[in-house]
Amino acid sequence: MKFTVNRTNFIKSLNDVQRAISSKTTIPILTGLKLTLAAQGLTLTGSNADISIETFISVDDDSAELQIEETGKIVLPARFFSEIIKKLPEAVLTINVTENYQTEITSGQASFTIKGLDADNYPHLPEIDETQHLSLTSDILKQIISQTVIAVSNQESRPILTGIHLVIKDEGLMAVATDSHRLSQRKITIDSGQNNAYDIIVPGKSLNELAKMLPDDSSDVELRISENQILFVFGNTSFYSRLLEGNYPDTERLIPQNSETTIEFNAVEFLSSIERASLLSHESHNNIVKLSLDVPEQKATIYSNSPEIGNVEETLKFQNLTGNTLEISFNPDYMKDALRSFGQTTVTVAFTKPLRPFTLVPSEDHEHFIQLITPVRTF
Amino acid sequence: MKFTVNRTNFIKSLNDVQRAISSKTTIPILTGLKLTLAAQGLTLTGSNADISIETFISVDDDSAELQIEETGKIVLPARFFSEIIKKLPEAVLTINVTENYQTEITSGQASFTIKGLDADNYPHLPEIDETQHLSLTSDILKQIISQTVIAVSNQESRPILTGIHLVIKDEGLMAVATDSHRLSQRKITIDSGQNNAYDIIVPGKSLNELAKMLPDDSSDVELRISENQILFVFGNTSFYSRLLEGNYPDTERLIPQNSETTIEFNAVEFLSSIERASLLSHESHNNIVKLSLDVPEQKATIYSNSPEIGNVEETLKFQNLTGNTLEISFNPDYMKDALRSFGQTTVTVAFTKPLRPFTLVPSEDHEHFIQLITPVRTF
Repeated sequence: MKFTVNRTNFIKSLNDVQRAISSKTTIPILTGLKLTLAAQGLTLTGSNADISIETFISVDDDSAELQIEETGKIVLPARFFSEIIKKLPEAVLTINVTENYQTEITSGQASFTIKGLDADNYPHLPEIDETQHLSLTSDILKQIISQTVIAVSNQESRPILTGIHLVIKDEGLMAVATDSHRLSQRKITIDSGQNNAYDIIVPGKSLNELAKMLPDDSSDVELRISENQILFVFGNTSFYSRLLEGNYPDTERLIPQNSETTIEFNAVEFLSSIERASLLSHESHNNIVKLSLDVPEQKATIYSNSPEIGNVEETLKFQNLTGNTLEISFNPDYMKDALRSFGQTTVTVAFTKPLRPFTLVPSEDHEHFIQLITPVRTF
Repeated sequence: MKFTVNRTNFIKSLNDVQRAISSKTTIPILTGLKLTLAAQGLTLTGSNADISIETFISVDDDSAELQIEETGKIVLPARFFSEIIKKLPEAVLTINVTENYQTEITSGQASFTIKGLDADNYPHLPEIDETQHLSLTSDILKQIISQTVIAVSNQESRPILTGIHLVIKDEGLMAVATDSHRLSQRKITIDSGQNNAYDIIVPGKSLNELAKMLPDDSSDVELRISENQILFVFGNTSFYSRLLEGNYPDTERLIPQNSETTIEFNAVEFLSSIERASLLSHESHNNIVKLSLDVPEQKATIYSNSPEIGNVEETLKFQNLTGNTLEISFNPDYMKDALRSFGQTTVTVAFTKPLRPFTLVPSEDHEHFIQLITPVRTF
C-alpha cells in the first residue's frame, strides 16, 4: 500500500475515527486504526466494543490531494500514528507499507518507520441492510440527543437506563431517557415516506459521541437499523453503534396529566438563580434547594443552606403563577441540566404535590418536549 | 464593615489574590481571603507559606465604584466566596459584616449569608524596608523569569536548586537556574542609580506565579529585598515571596569557554524537528535523541528510536556548521524547553565533546543569554 494525501484533510478524518478508538480495550488490534486503500479512495476505520466509525477520503476530492500508488490495507497504532501525523512538517504526507507490515511515513525531510499489524485480523464491521432507512437533518438530530441524553443513567446497575429509547412509528419519532430521578422526552414528526416502525434503545454514550461529530447544519443524516445495530451515515462518515437489549420501562405513565400549581420562568434567568443556590447546596450533604411559591402574595423564592458555610435566598422573577401555594425541594443539578436543554426560552413548570414529580415544558409548545424531575423529601 | 463595589473590578482583584491562597494549608485561616476596608479603599490579602499577595481598590478609582459605609475587616472562605461573587446577578455587589462575623453578600435579588473569621487572627505580612529598591520593566522581568525558570529543579532533595539565583551588582542583574542536568542564565544591565548589591535565591514557583500576574508592557515593577523576603510592587498589587536560605552552587565554572563544533539553527524549525524525534524517544525507556553533525558532508541529522514502535530520522536545515564532526545524544525535553525560551531567532549551538555539556545562545547576542544542556552517555 502506498499513497500521498493532504495532511489537513487526513487529520480531520483521523480525528473523527479516533473517537471510536480506545487504548483500554481487551482486543489489542482495536487500539489500532485501519487504513484500507482501494481504487476509489482511502477508508479509515476505528472501533471499540460499542461503536465503530468509518470515514472515506475519495480520490475525486481535489482538496484531499489523494494520490494512489498501490492499493492495500494496514492497521497502525492509532494514538501514536496520530501524534506523528500532527507533527509532520509539510502540507502533504506519504504512507508506504513495505514488508512485514513496516510502514514508512514521510513528509519533507522527516521520515518515520513504525510497525503495523495485518489488517486481515481486524474485526469486520456489522452488516446492515441498505434498503430501509430513515432521514433526519443533522441539527435536529443533535438537538434531540442533547435534550434527552442529560437524563440517561450512568449507573450500570440497570443497563437499560444507560440508553435513549427511540420509538419510530406513524411518521413520528419519540426519544426518551430516564435515570429514575428525572426524565426527558422529545417528539418530532418525521417525513418517513415508508412504513417503518422501530422500538430500539441506543447507548447514551454512543449518541454523545455521534453528536460531537454531527455538523450544525440541516444536512441529511441517514439512519439504518438492524436487529442489534444502528448506523448513521452523514457526509463521508458512517457511525455504527450497538443497541441495548431488553425492554425499556413504560415512561408514558410517569408523566402527570394535570397540575395544581403552574409558573413560568425565563429559562436563562431561572438557571442563573439555581446556579447561585446550588453553590450552597453543594456544600451541604444532601444537595437540595427549596422553591417556595406563594400564590396569594405572587412571590417565588429560592433557598438553600449549608450548616457549615451559610445560606442563600433569592426572590425570583416569573410570570403567571397560578393554582395552590407550594413548597418543594429538589436536586438543583437536575434542574440545571433541564434548564440548559431549553436554551433561550420561557418554560412552564407544572406541579401537583410537594412529593410528586413536576414537569418543565417550553411555554410556546407543550407537546414536543418535556422534562420531568422527582422532588426530594425533606421531612 | 460595609461597602458596595463594582463586581468586575472586584473579581479582577480577587483572582489576583487567590493565586496565593491554597485550600491545602496547615494554617486554617490561610484558606481565607482577608478584606480590610479603610477610608482610602479596600485591601484584599491572600497568603500561603511561600507567597503573599495584596491588591488595593482605591476609593478614588471611578471604575471600581467603591462606596464605603463602614470601615472594618473580615476573613472569608476564599474559594467559596469567590464562587459566589462570580455568580452574582448584578454589576455591583454589597458586602456587610454583621455580628459574630456573619457576612451578607447581596446583589440584585440574591442574598447570601456566610460565616467569616476574625481578621485579627490573620498572620501579619512581612515588613520590608521601603527606602531601598530597584526597578525593572514588567515585560523584561517576565522574560527573565520565563527564560530561567525552565531550568529550575522540581526535586526537593536539593531545595536550593528549586530557586532562581539572582545576583545584582555593578548595575548588572544575573538570573541563573540549574537542576544539575541543564542550566539557564540571563544577564541584563540595570539602571539602579544606587549602590545596591544583592545575592538571593527566589523560589521558582513564586516567580512562576508572579509572571502570570505581570502585565505584558513596559510598566514599572519595584523590587524590595530584605534578609528573607522579596517584594514586587506593580500597579495596585504587592507580591511577597520568601527567599531560599543557603548558598547557590558556583555555576560560572560549568559554562564551557571554548568549543570544537558549532552550528546555527532557526530555533522554531529546530524545535519542530526535536518535537518529532521526541515522539519516538518518549516511547523508549531512556528518552534520548541522537544528533549527528557531519562537517565534511555538511549534513546534520537527528535520529530516535523505540524498539517497540519504530524509528525516526530527519535531515535538518542549518547554517554555519564548522569544527569537528560529532555525534551526541541528549534528552529532547531539555532541548525543547531551551529552544522555546529563544522564540523566533537563530541560535548558535556550541559543542566540545560528546559527553561534555553544550550550549545554546542567540546568534546575534552571545553575551546575555545562555542555555546549557548535559548530554546523555549511550555506550
